[in-house]
Amino acid sequence: MNLSRRNFLFKSTAGAAALASIPAIVSSCMGKTKNETSDFFSSGDVVLFQGDSITDAGREKERQLPNSAWSFGNGYAMIAAANLLNSMPEKELVIYNRGISGNKVYQLAERWDADCLNLKPNVLSILIGVNDYWHKRNGNYDGTVEIYENDYMKLLERTKAALPDVKLVLCEPFYVLDTSAVDETWVAPMKEYQVAAKRVSDAFNTIWVPFQTIFDEAVKHAPGTYWTGDGVHPSMAGAQLMAEAWLAATK
Amino acid sequence: MNLSRRNFLFKSTAGAAALASIPAIVSSCMGKTKNETSDFFSSGDVVLFQGDSITDAGREKERQLPNSAWSFGNGYAMIAAANLLNSMPEKELVIYNRGISGNKVYQLAERWDADCLNLKPNVLSILIGVNDYWHKRNGNYDGTVEIYENDYMKLLERTKAALPDVKLVLCEPFYVLDTSAVDETWVAPMKEYQVAAKRVSDAFNTIWVPFQTIFDEAVKHAPGTYWTGDGVHPSMAGAQLMAEAWLAATK
Repeated sequence: MNLSRRNFLFKSTAGAAALASIPAIVSSCMGKTKNETSDFFSSGDVVLFQGDSITDAGREKERQLPNSAWSFGNGYAMIAAANLLNSMPEKELVIYNRGISGNKVYQLAERWDADCLNLKPNVLSILIGVNDYWHKRNGNYDGTVEIYENDYMKLLERTKAALPDVKLVLCEPFYVLDTSAVDETWVAPMKEYQVAAKRVSDAFNTIWVPFQTIFDEAVKHAPGTYWTGDGVHPSMAGAQLMAEAWLAATK
Repeated sequence: MNLSRRNFLFKSTAGAAALASIPAIVSSCMGKTKNETSDFFSSGDVVLFQGDSITDAGREKERQLPNSAWSFGNGYAMIAAANLLNSMPEKELVIYNRGISGNKVYQLAERWDADCLNLKPNVLSILIGVNDYWHKRNGNYDGTVEIYENDYMKLLERTKAALPDVKLVLCEPFYVLDTSAVDETWVAPMKEYQVAAKRVSDAFNTIWVPFQTIFDEAVKHAPGTYWTGDGVHPSMAGAQLMAEAWLAATK
C-alpha cells in the first residue's frame, strides 16, 4: 500500500473546484455540522451503539465497560463517543458499544435482551444491513430484503415496547465502489436494503444518518479506498467522517 | 465504576458559570481551535507520533501500517490522525504511530533509527517524560531530570542532523490530580520535567502543545478521573481533548 504516491482521480479540474470542501461534506449533506452542546442528550443518558463489524471495530468483549476506549475499538463509535464525552461532561453520559462483527439483523434480535434492553438506553443507535446483503450474496445466508425489513421492524417494536421513551438513531447501511470487495453489482441490491432501512426509520420516526449520501460525496474528494479499503469497513478517514455525520444528525 | 451517578464537584455555582465551555477550553488555552485545512502540512508529508503508552494506546505492532486504525490504537494520536486524514485527503498524508508503552526518553533514542529517522518524517510529534519521572519515583529507574533534558536535547540534535527540515511538535508531559495514581506529591517534581521539556522545545523552536494547561482547565468542568483514571492515561474524553489541542497547535 503506497499511500504517499496515490494519485487522486478527480472528475475534472473544474469539477474539483466546485466541490464542497471536506469539512463541509457533512454540513452540505445534512444541513448542519457536528453538535458541540446538544439538547438531544439529557443528563445521565445511557447511549448505546449497536451494529456489526463497522461498529464493533475491534472492541474488547470481556469487560465491555461504558466510556472506555478499550471497550469501544477504533471506529466511528469510538470517535463519536469521545466527542460526546469531551464536549458535554456535565451530562455524565454513559456510552456503550455493543456492535459485533458479522451480525445481521436477526443476530441483533438473538442478543437484544442482554446487549440492548437490559442496558436501558435512552439513545439507541443502530447500523445494520451490509451483512444481510453481503452474506446472502456470497452464499452464507439465505435471508431476503423482506426478512431484513420485517426483522428490523419487529426489533424496533420490541424495543419501543420495553423502552417507550428511547430515542432511536438509524444509520444507513452503505458501500463504497472501486474498492477491494465492492463493485457496481452491489448498487441495485444494496439500494433495496437502504430503502428498507429508511422505511423502518420512517415507521418509527427515528433520526436518520445518511451514510451513503456522505460517502458518495467523499469519493469526489479522494478514491474509494481512501475511505474504506474493502468498500465496507471504513479507514481512519472514513471513521472520522462517519462520526461527524452521526454527531451532526444528533444535534 | 458508577459513571451515571457521579457527582461533579464544581468549586461553586458562580465559579462554574464563569468557566469557559468545554469546546472553548482549547481555544481559550491556546488562542485557536483545531485546524481544518492547514498550511502546516504539505502534500505527501509523513507525520510521525512518538512517545510512551499515552501515544501507544494499544496499537498493533506487527504490521505498523500508516493511516491504519489498527496500527494507531485508541488514543489521542488515532483521533488526531483521523481528523487530519478526513479533513485534508488531497494532501495524501502518511501518518504513523510508533509510541511504545513504558518508554522514557533514552528508550526513544535506542530505537530512533528504526522508529523515526528511517521513516523520514516531515512532521514529528513527541510526548515523553511521565515515565522518566514515574519510574524513578517508584524505584524502577535512576535517571534524573537533568538526564531527561540532556537525552532529549541530544535526541533532537540527532534528529535535526538527519532531517534538517523536519517540523517538530513537542507535547508537554502532564498529570491529573485526584486520580488513582497521582497526588499532590507529583506537582513539584513533574514541574521540573515540564520546565525541562519546554527548554528543549524553545532550544529547537518547536511547536509546543501545553497539555498540562489544557487538563488544568478541564478539571474545572469534571473530576480528574473523568479525564484520566490513573492521572496519566487519558479516558476517551481526555484523548479527544488532547487530540483537539494537538490539532489546534499545528494549525
